[in-house]
Amino acid sequence: MPSSAAIRVAILGFGTVGEGAYRMLEDNREAITRKVGRPVEVVGIGVRDLTRSRTAPRSLFTNDLPKLVRREDVDVVLELIGGLDPAASLVEQALERGVPVVTANKELIAKQGRELLSLAGRHHVDLHFEAAVGGGIPLVQPLKHQLAGNDVLKLIGILNGTTNTILTRMAVDGAGFDEALREAQELGYAEADPTNDVDGYDAAYKLAILGSIAFGRQVPVDQVYREGIRRVSQVDMHFADVLGYAIKLLAIIEPAHETLFARVHPTLIPRTHPLAGVDGVYNAVWLHGDFVGDLMFSGRGAGSDPTASAVIGDLIGVARDVVAGQSGQPILWGEPIDLLPIADLETSYYVRLNVQDRPKVLGQIALEFGHHDVGLSAMEMRVIDRKRELGEIVFLTHRCRESDFRAGLASVAALDAIVEVCSDFRVEA
Amino acid sequence: MPSSAAIRVAILGFGTVGEGAYRMLEDNREAITRKVGRPVEVVGIGVRDLTRSRTAPRSLFTNDLPKLVRREDVDVVLELIGGLDPAASLVEQALERGVPVVTANKELIAKQGRELLSLAGRHHVDLHFEAAVGGGIPLVQPLKHQLAGNDVLKLIGILNGTTNTILTRMAVDGAGFDEALREAQELGYAEADPTNDVDGYDAAYKLAILGSIAFGRQVPVDQVYREGIRRVSQVDMHFADVLGYAIKLLAIIEPAHETLFARVHPTLIPRTHPLAGVDGVYNAVWLHGDFVGDLMFSGRGAGSDPTASAVIGDLIGVARDVVAGQSGQPILWGEPIDLLPIADLETSYYVRLNVQDRPKVLGQIALEFGHHDVGLSAMEMRVIDRKRELGEIVFLTHRCRESDFRAGLASVAALDAIVEVCSDFRVEA
Repeated sequence: MPSSAAIRVAILGFGTVGEGAYRMLEDNREAITRKVGRPVEVVGIGVRDLTRSRTAPRSLFTNDLPKLVRREDVDVVLELIGGLDPAASLVEQALERGVPVVTANKELIAKQGRELLSLAGRHHVDLHFEAAVGGGIPLVQPLKHQLAGNDVLKLIGILNGTTNTILTRMAVDGAGFDEALREAQELGYAEADPTNDVDGYDAAYKLAILGSIAFGRQVPVDQVYREGIRRVSQVDMHFADVLGYAIKLLAIIEPAHETLFARVHPTLIPRTHPLAGVDGVYNAVWLHGDFVGDLMFSGRGAGSDPTASAVIGDLIGVARDVVAGQSGQPILWGEPIDLLPIADLETSYYVRLNVQDRPKVLGQIALEFGHHDVGLSAMEMRVIDRKRELGEIVFLTHRCRESDFRAGLASVAALDAIVEVCSDFRVEA
Repeated sequence: MPSSAAIRVAILGFGTVGEGAYRMLEDNREAITRKVGRPVEVVGIGVRDLTRSRTAPRSLFTNDLPKLVRREDVDVVLELIGGLDPAASLVEQALERGVPVVTANKELIAKQGRELLSLAGRHHVDLHFEAAVGGGIPLVQPLKHQLAGNDVLKLIGILNGTTNTILTRMAVDGAGFDEALREAQELGYAEADPTNDVDGYDAAYKLAILGSIAFGRQVPVDQVYREGIRRVSQVDMHFADVLGYAIKLLAIIEPAHETLFARVHPTLIPRTHPLAGVDGVYNAVWLHGDFVGDLMFSGRGAGSDPTASAVIGDLIGVARDVVAGQSGQPILWGEPIDLLPIADLETSYYVRLNVQDRPKVLGQIALEFGHHDVGLSAMEMRVIDRKRELGEIVFLTHRCRESDFRAGLASVAALDAIVEVCSDFRVEA
């Protein structure tokens, strides 16, 4: 390749992320050229619908994506479509042709990352996906490289901006879940069908990716334990605050018994923990490594510009490799690992109960839990309805086994004095 | 090289960092071998004093460091001596022989980074220095790579753990500077001669390195404006807190007028800023990029284990390059750039004055500053000595030019009613 020739890029998909990546290449052209050592030029953009108006020259667009990927003059493919079909087969075709790929596709990497990395390795080409997790926050590469010498002992992420925005709104303004969700939808932070975000699928994809890198084995995303935030109520927000906690949708992965726990669920986290202050659209990853100790990364976890930042960072790296005639040696991850069932988890819990407000009720609750080796720690109580003698009890447990906690909670629920088990959440100490 | 052959490492220096790096290679041998694809083996350790007892086999040690660097069987050199002499010439010798180098030496990279990177480039070998800034926090590589597409619009670091520990002790426990310094010395966080940390030299080296990467031009460390924390008093800590600020030794770099401001000084920063909560031995870097938006990295900024984490992360990357028979293409930085003088800075200020407690004094102060285009904002006042009519006035200014502020402050100091200008600090909004 002549030393002045441009690095030629095909962009697949021109939604929020594709448009942002194109704009960043235009806006910061000079600095990017200097860093790559050659100009970087977009030679084609693949979209489904050619009739929509676009912020790039019309001549660049095509709706024949397979043909775009097969073009002889494409040096790098940016896959910014999302989802599995047709993204997966397009990425495969590029890699098989020896063309490096940068993708922002978390579902693709979470589900097929191992196979695709191995394909990239066989063809000696780069496959980068920094934008798949945490928007613009550098996470994938630092975990792969700068932290590679560490045994990661725990990794906790706030990996979904939509749920974090909803929970922040509930905590700060006292909104209920439905109201906060509706508002997020109106502001464009949540989709019309919010399942992917609100029920924790998005965070689970991202956790599986981070876990696969950190632990070197494919983390099967369908085994990641997953609860969404629909159960979080304003009342729980209030009691968590009183007890000194924030409620966040945390994605947590940690080694145990030669394998891993991986889970996504609403969690109480102490206000003193740095993750408790990560609000709104911000994402963060906190981790503890055996040598590095505690570490945290935070920043904008989604949106056109931050995601473009990660895509273009990857592209600059790949383009430099193309210029140097080498590839970035993907770090492969090994065979899928069987995750531990949530029943084996040891943690502590928050419980809120509606009870008949009688003298002996707290003792009965403590006794039932005690039968299952579950000890109570902090407790709050309030009267709901004095006439009907209804009260609300909130307590935290000591660290115990999930299966014991569930059994204890079932026994408690069966007590005459218990009107309703309103909610229970895990607590991160 | 046969595919089972070990990557052979020479360690120069076996102080805190060298010992930590050796221990990490031993402790995490299996995982590191898996990530590199070959075992990594220390074949020699260069030290000045052979008689000291060591935590590695005696047979590895030599006090002939140049000879160790010249050994034919060394694949990678870890330079963990620190300082310029003999580190600089040893690193040069290794690079000239085509041997890649990993260093934790901030003074070396801040002062000679440009020449050494260029030497490494000419010999097609890696030169990595993640450990030179922020201990175990990945900063150098993310700035170089994942954030490379951004124009960095501002970067602020808490880059020195010793001063941050002292300031945290003063803020939390109400200790005075001397007491907090003495304690840090007793605990081993500060050296007997604390100048390098306390007067901001260490932070200035690190800022120059981060700035050179972020802006692609050598930031001349001797032009970095530098004030230490000796002037910070308990009284200032108190008033800052009342006004809603923490006082931190911040290292700040930002583009302006086609060049840069780079400065290290004690700074008031709002309690709501994420940097305000970075306490004790933790370091952090906050930055704003045009696409990525706000981003923060935090973690342990010094100490044996976190620094080893960064050194070994670099070593794994270099070893993978050695295995693949390629080099990591150092990103060079350009000609030194002339920094802007502090007199041209625009920011706001905190001032504490002892005054004769007379009715007109505040008006006089505001008038003098007004003559120099400096407006006052928040103000606090207290009586020090009612009999002698002594008072203390603390105020913040609006954003103004440093040269105007200095001229205004000089006029104020000359007023009859002003007993003493006790302190002034810059404020980060």
